Amino acid sequence: MTTNNNYCVIMAGGIGSRFWPLSTQKFPKQFQDILGTGSTMIQQTYQRISDTIPNENIFVITNKEYTDLCRSQLPLVPAENIVGEPMMKNTAACNLYMINKIAAQNPEANIIVLPADHLILNEKRFTEKIELALELAKENDYLVTLGITPTRPDTGYGYIQYLPTKKAQYYKVKTFTEKPNLEIAKTFLESGDFLWNAGIFIWNVKSILKCFNKYLPDMVQQFNSCEYNSKREEECIELIYPKLSKISIDNGIMEKADNVYVIPADLGWSDLGTWTSVYDNAEKNELNNAINSKNILSYNSTGNIVLVKNKNKAAVIDGLENYIIVDTDKALLICPRDNDQMIKEYVNDLRNIKRGERFM
Amino acid sequence: MTTNNNYCVIMAGGIGSRFWPLSTQKFPKQFQDILGTGSTMIQQTYQRISDTIPNENIFVITNKEYTDLCRSQLPLVPAENIVGEPMMKNTAACNLYMINKIAAQNPEANIIVLPADHLILNEKRFTEKIELALELAKENDYLVTLGITPTRPDTGYGYIQYLPTKKAQYYKVKTFTEKPNLEIAKTFLESGDFLWNAGIFIWNVKSILKCFNKYLPDMVQQFNSCEYNSKREEECIELIYPKLSKISIDNGIMEKADNVYVIPADLGWSDLGTWTSVYDNAEKNELNNAINSKNILSYNSTGNIVLVKNKNKAAVIDGLENYIIVDTDKALLICPRDNDQMIKEYVNDLRNIKRGERFM
Repeated sequence: MTTNNNYCVIMAGGIGSRFWPLSTQKFPKQFQDILGTGSTMIQQTYQRISDTIPNENIFVITNKEYTDLCRSQLPLVPAENIVGEPMMKNTAACNLYMINKIAAQNPEANIIVLPADHLILNEKRFTEKIELALELAKENDYLVTLGITPTRPDTGYGYIQYLPTKKAQYYKVKTFTEKPNLEIAKTFLESGDFLWNAGIFIWNVKSILKCFNKYLPDMVQQFNSCEYNSKREEECIELIYPKLSKISIDNGIMEKADNVYVIPADLGWSDLGTWTSVYDNAEKNELNNAINSKNILSYNSTGNIVLVKNKNKAAVIDGLENYIIVDTDKALLICPRDNDQMIKEYVNDLRNIKRGERFM
Repeated sequence: MTTNNNYCVIMAGGIGSRFWPLSTQKFPKQFQDILGTGSTMIQQTYQRISDTIPNENIFVITNKEYTDLCRSQLPLVPAENIVGEPMMKNTAACNLYMINKIAAQNPEANIIVLPADHLILNEKRFTEKIELALELAKENDYLVTLGITPTRPDTGYGYIQYLPTKKAQYYKVKTFTEKPNLEIAKTFLESGDFLWNAGIFIWNVKSILKCFNKYLPDMVQQFNSCEYNSKREEECIELIYPKLSKISIDNGIMEKADNVYVIPADLGWSDLGTWTSVYDNAEKNELNNAINSKNILSYNSTGNIVLVKNKNKAAVIDGLENYIIVDTDKALLICPRDNDQMIKEYVNDLRNIKRGERFM
């Protein structure tokens, strides 16, 4: 296998409002060291793929507001590979943009699509599965995805049901599902043929373009009006973006296509979609507090996540159980871990205060 | 009554460690606007006395570390009246220093001694009682103190027992007591002849010097070696201070003297000695949260004091009942109101962390 045809697209356009106040519109989650490991989420994503894909074949698609941030955090990725969208249009549009851009360079390209802000603990297995997926996508007219072996009936994830045949390294996908309720999630887990949808896709540009032509022909037509990797690309993209429909790659393509294959992968994966999932994945002390600095003291407190962005700042917490405490220069959040889905509401309420926009 | 003989000494030497993290060694409580009223505690104390005493007769005794801070907060007080002690030696020494300094200017002086960091809501009554006290101290060989009419069996204050005679404006003091336990405090309150010791004293320099000579003659001897209001004063003070005993004016003089008189005064007084007393005296919203900025939102929370020093910073608290939340650039404190006496311990523990000194 020559690696020259293998590409990676890191999707880094989210604003991560569920991680306020650490994640803000100016500095979203993917650019933060949310677990305190010493590298940001997008840097971890880059490092994870950089053994498999050479730097010149790694692309980042983000909002144009974040291209400078991406370039400063990923100095080894060529600056021209870091592409800014003029507005948010969900994942079908950004994927088709990058497919066109890469296909214009290399019509034989195989592309790995990775969200910028997910956690994967088992990097070795990730590399193995990605290499298998690239092989499958190269040799077959398949859309390939990695499905995460579920460890609990999580209602925060979409699920992929596959057609169980004899034990194999990959399976044909029967259906993509939306986030289930707990009852349904439990039956998914019991049935054994459901995997978590991690939003990791691998496809050859020919296969995926065939599907876009079939299921989103209007979008294809818009993108076909641009000349990629030229001086006029940006101007053309600015022109067509307002006309594109806001649809996810899951809804627009994956749920409809009949050539989707899934590779079950036990990756130690989390989408780190909430503070609770960060708590679950963070290192905890003997009292089950996840604390990001030695200058934080806790008394009579267990099960808390305490993140003080300024590590020189002292903090004392006393008498708190299962709370989220996040402190930045701009804002302080103290709320029960169980209320982490309220954070978007807090931020909205703050926006309604005069001059509140500054906080998000 | 000519006011030329009337002086005031504001005692502003404390470090207020119970108000960490707002109050720090560099910026103690008396220099903070702890209730969010728009003026600091020492400014309020100055304003309260400045109708009665002319600026040139107002003195401030503080640690020499804070003389600049005092001068910037009290620009109308002559700079040379703001005096720095070379080290902390409790209240007998600082009183005797100021008595000597003022007596050298005016041997007929009557002095009002006021702590810099107490709250008094009823300023009109304060002025009336102070004027009565000055009159008493001028005409008699009395040490006069204001005693606060107690409103609850508080165990955080010292009490003054007086000899109840027929109803009068002032009474002879029977005894000064230390902070009682709750049982004893209740009997004090029931007996009706106990008042809170607010540390407010009024005396003529001759009367108080007579008592110092009698009860603390060694200290008098040390101070007599200096020449006051001269160029050599500071140097001499530096020399004698290390030799002075650390004793309070209460223990050293007031408990022993037999010419102490108390004026009962219902002043709306608090020593604001703890965050709980600040909570009690602060303005509260409909959910009984005392909150210092409009950028603080609370959900499912009652009975909290939330003080975010940077008023442009947003804060969200959810699910907290009866907590103290104080946020500064340097530190964050979250603890139950009932644990406010633990704060000195927190600060000590932080000091034990490497480089922890910076927090206090």
